[in-house]
Amino acid sequence: MNLDPDWVVGFVDGEGCFYIGINPHPEMSIGYQVLPEFRVVQHERDIQVLHALKRFFGHGVVRRNHENRFELRIRRLAALREVADFFEKHPLKTKKAVDARKFARVIRLMQEDRHLDNEGLVAIIEIACSMNRADKVQAREIMATLKSKEPEVGDETSTKDSG
Amino acid sequence: MNLDPDWVVGFVDGEGCFYIGINPHPEMSIGYQVLPEFRVVQHERDIQVLHALKRFFGHGVVRRNHENRFELRIRRLAALREVADFFEKHPLKTKKAVDARKFARVIRLMQEDRHLDNEGLVAIIEIACSMNRADKVQAREIMATLKSKEPEVGDETSTKDSG
Repeated sequence: MNLDPDWVVGFVDGEGCFYIGINPHPEMSIGYQVLPEFRVVQHERDIQVLHALKRFFGHGVVRRNHENRFELRIRRLAALREVADFFEKHPLKTKKAVDARKFARVIRLMQEDRHLDNEGLVAIIEIACSMNRADKVQAREIMATLKSKEPEVGDETSTKDSG
Repeated sequence: MNLDPDWVVGFVDGEGCFYIGINPHPEMSIGYQVLPEFRVVQHERDIQVLHALKRFFGHGVVRRNHENRFELRIRRLAALREVADFFEKHPLKTKKAVDARKFARVIRLMQEDRHLDNEGLVAIIEIACSMNRADKVQAREIMATLKSKEPEVGDETSTKDSG
C-alpha cells in the first residue's frame, strides 16, 4: 500500500495524535522526563494501514494499544523532527494543525536540550499544557513542584543546584 | 479551504461513516423505510472542515450531532450516488472501503426501487447487516418480521399484497 502525502495529512487530521508526556523520572537531575510522541491508533482490522504509515515516515513501531486496537508510535527525537517537518510542509486542515506546530516547537526545544534545565522545562510544560490532549492537572502539579524547587533564602532546597 | 481528493479520502478513512438505516415506517406499503446516510462528525472547533467537505461533495447539511459535535450529513439518493462514485474512483485505504462498496450497492438497488418490494428489501438488509456499523439486532428483527409476512396458506397476512 503506497500512501499519498495528502492522504496521510487527511488521515492524521482524523486519527493522529501529537502528545507531550511529562513523567516523574527520579534518575534525571531535573526529576522529570519529557516524552513527546506521535501516535495513530486503529482497530486491528486496519493494522496494514499502520504499517504503511510506518513505511511512509520511515520510523516508529506498530504495537498493541488496547484490546483489539493497535498503534503506530514514533518517539525518537530525530524521527519526530522529520514528522514535524512533514506537517510543516503539508499542513493539517483541522485545528490539530495548532497542536502539530506546538509539538514542533517542543521538539526544537528538546533538540537544544532545553528540557534539561528548569526554565526550559517550564516553557515546554506551558506549551504541552496548551495542547488539546494535555493532562492539565498533572502539568499544573509538576509546575508547582518545579516552582517550589526554585532557590529561596532559608529554603532547605536552596543548596541544590537547579541549573 | 480547498480540499484535495486524496486528503478527503484520508480524512474519510478516519472520520467518515457509511450507514444504512432501516426504520419502521407505517405509511410505506412495505412497512419499512431504508435510509442510507453518509456522515462525517467533528468537534465544533472543526466545523469549517465540515463546510469544506460539503462544498467538495456539493451536497449535504452541516448540523449539530450531539453536544459540542457537528456532522456533515448527506441523505439524498442522487447525492449519495455521487459520493459513492467518488469513492469508487478514489478508493479508501482502510477496511472502510468494503463498507463503501456495500453502500454503493445499496444505493444502486434503491435507484432501481428495489427497497420497495420484499425481496429487494431483504437483499438490502442483508448487505446492511454485513456492514461494520450495522445495528444487527434490529436488522434480524426486521428480517423475521418480513419473513412472517410471506404469504402462507391459512396465514392471516396471506391476503396482503407483498409485491
